[in-house]
Amino acid sequence: MLIVQKYGGSSVADTTRMENVAWRVIAARQAGHDVVVVVSARGDTTDHLMEEATQTNPNASKREIDMLLTTGEQTSCALLAMTIQGLGAPAVSLNAYQAGISATSAHTSARIKAIDCERIRTELDSGQIVVIAGFQGVNRRGDLTTLGRGGSDTTAVALAAALHADICEIYTDVNGIYSADPRIVKNAIKLPEISYFEMLELAALGANVLAKRSVGLAKKYGVKLVVRSSLNETEGTIVKEEVKMEGIFISGVAVDKDITRISISGIKDEPGVWFKVFSIMNKGNIPIDFIQQTKQDIGTKDISFTVAKNDLPDAIAALNGNTHRLGFDAISHMDGIAKLSVVSTGMATNPGVPSLMFEALFDAGINIDSISTSEIRASVLIDISEADRAANLVHEKFRNGKYIKE
Amino acid sequence: MLIVQKYGGSSVADTTRMENVAWRVIAARQAGHDVVVVVSARGDTTDHLMEEATQTNPNASKREIDMLLTTGEQTSCALLAMTIQGLGAPAVSLNAYQAGISATSAHTSARIKAIDCERIRTELDSGQIVVIAGFQGVNRRGDLTTLGRGGSDTTAVALAAALHADICEIYTDVNGIYSADPRIVKNAIKLPEISYFEMLELAALGANVLAKRSVGLAKKYGVKLVVRSSLNETEGTIVKEEVKMEGIFISGVAVDKDITRISISGIKDEPGVWFKVFSIMNKGNIPIDFIQQTKQDIGTKDISFTVAKNDLPDAIAALNGNTHRLGFDAISHMDGIAKLSVVSTGMATNPGVPSLMFEALFDAGINIDSISTSEIRASVLIDISEADRAANLVHEKFRNGKYIKE
Repeated sequence: MLIVQKYGGSSVADTTRMENVAWRVIAARQAGHDVVVVVSARGDTTDHLMEEATQTNPNASKREIDMLLTTGEQTSCALLAMTIQGLGAPAVSLNAYQAGISATSAHTSARIKAIDCERIRTELDSGQIVVIAGFQGVNRRGDLTTLGRGGSDTTAVALAAALHADICEIYTDVNGIYSADPRIVKNAIKLPEISYFEMLELAALGANVLAKRSVGLAKKYGVKLVVRSSLNETEGTIVKEEVKMEGIFISGVAVDKDITRISISGIKDEPGVWFKVFSIMNKGNIPIDFIQQTKQDIGTKDISFTVAKNDLPDAIAALNGNTHRLGFDAISHMDGIAKLSVVSTGMATNPGVPSLMFEALFDAGINIDSISTSEIRASVLIDISEADRAANLVHEKFRNGKYIKE
Repeated sequence: MLIVQKYGGSSVADTTRMENVAWRVIAARQAGHDVVVVVSARGDTTDHLMEEATQTNPNASKREIDMLLTTGEQTSCALLAMTIQGLGAPAVSLNAYQAGISATSAHTSARIKAIDCERIRTELDSGQIVVIAGFQGVNRRGDLTTLGRGGSDTTAVALAAALHADICEIYTDVNGIYSADPRIVKNAIKLPEISYFEMLELAALGANVLAKRSVGLAKKYGVKLVVRSSLNETEGTIVKEEVKMEGIFISGVAVDKDITRISISGIKDEPGVWFKVFSIMNKGNIPIDFIQQTKQDIGTKDISFTVAKNDLPDAIAALNGNTHRLGFDAISHMDGIAKLSVVSTGMATNPGVPSLMFEALFDAGINIDSISTSEIRASVLIDISEADRAANLVHEKFRNGKYIKE
């Protein structure tokens, strides 16, 4: 088998953990597999480098930020290769140039375009464990670009696709994908498997284990993913296309507290307003949710929608930059809200699934501000102070109804 | 003019110094010049990375060490580019891939083979200040290699040669090349200029301002060097081919305390012994000096020579690896010695120059252990405890005799 393993920053944060990773990698090699390892920068390295960039020049070009950030992964892949060598196995580290990873020019948020696997295959053929710097690519000019949040997951999946790997193992500090965040919901259950679709929704709804884009990429190329812990031998969660559908399963309950509501008042009441808002947000790559509008008497309306807290500054700037086009009176925003979601591929054909969530919330007297649904998820906006209690109650309701896979 | 400027690790060790460097670079740009800047890793970065490599795996492959070390210069060149941008000038950083620096595969001690200047020229043409990572090159396989001690000086000189730069300015923490080490000889005088030949000898004799190989490269390609301080506006020392020869000048007095004497006893007294010793030392790239031999009655002889303390372990290992070929009884070594040298291109035609050194030492009652001369330098081996006093006395003697340029 050809296995791609990905280890995050916390898994290689110090010498002891780095050795633990090295032993795992060597075990896979000794079991007769070809092993390609993708590593992130150690611990908080990326944050520290970013801090240093900001202190040096808050308006530094993104090209230079990428030049700085990519040293983090080059460092960790060299150190991991040394560690593996120290434990008696042959290893070689490759940065994006050496691993042939081509990416777009969008500095700090590039996409992988192609991977020329020749060097990697040569090293594998000569018996090496190949350790690759995650999160980075080289653009057409030969400049380093970084892949943004979750970039190393994306590197691992893209490599698995390009190398036609048998499996891509994502190692992390949790045991797999849970039916809800175990830190919030005490009866959360580790799922043995989950479909790409469900995982995509969960990832988008605040389950931080896997980056959404890496799941999308895995789906596109049919890469079989396993999410598991780097700290124990527990079997993880398999993410793949086909998941056994014995009845209707709720795959997960997700809570996202990092959202905020933007309200625009006194906007012209004419056709095309939402088209304009969507196109402005789209241009800034800012997803929106929970869209609402209220008509006023005087030919205007008030509209509101939610965005991730991270995106708030960009969203406000983009809207203010289009005052003339939109013609509004004022923009405001409000925190204190949370999004509670249930995700299941069975939902589309069974309307009873969302209603069970509403029942749980009604029983507990938790007020629903608004509702948003897609083919395989149902979300409600509630007060942030109720979020954890609501997540537990909804999870329990579905679990008692045998809707959660165990 | 096209100017190449090189700043060492201490010149960019912190934010304040980095800004100081940025202002200097911008001043040269504003004076209408094209500016290419070469930087070393900040402060002790390289030492720290080396320490980390050793802790991770004392026998890590040199390839991986280079992979790790090169992050130091990539970091400093990105930060310097950001700093320059922050002060309002356009700047771009380039690592060895981007700057087109090809090097040999000898990891940790590679040589630059060629520089493809296309990207650098494009950036200069578009008005950028180009900041280049020193000390690193890319070998035929696409792997990073480092250039060893003084590597960033070499990068700067090689770039100046490849770009046909008008001048290559080496910025350091001293004001230029002195007639002796100012920390030892209180009347040491800063030289306005010095020839490549003299500078080569001084560099080889322990004057640490310029790496010997970078001087050799400058001589080969006729690159005009200036050595000057990054901390003030004092004019530095020009290093070039032709130096005005008004009379005989002693260009410098050098003291090297980092040497040790290796003695080999009971070596076979037959032709070719020295050839063997030289070829063994040469293979290990270990320069030797102060060669002596003493015949014994019984068909053997004892020989001794000096090497740099750094080279001692390698030298002993190389000799022990050739016991059979050399046929000797024992190897020992002795510290406590220092090499005192005077360097001058006028020396070859004027035997009075070395004799002045012997006179100064005789006047002071300092014992000379042995003597070694080349075309433009005369060295004596003396007790290390006398070294500083001897350097001052010899320097004073030449200065009083108007042999030192002022």
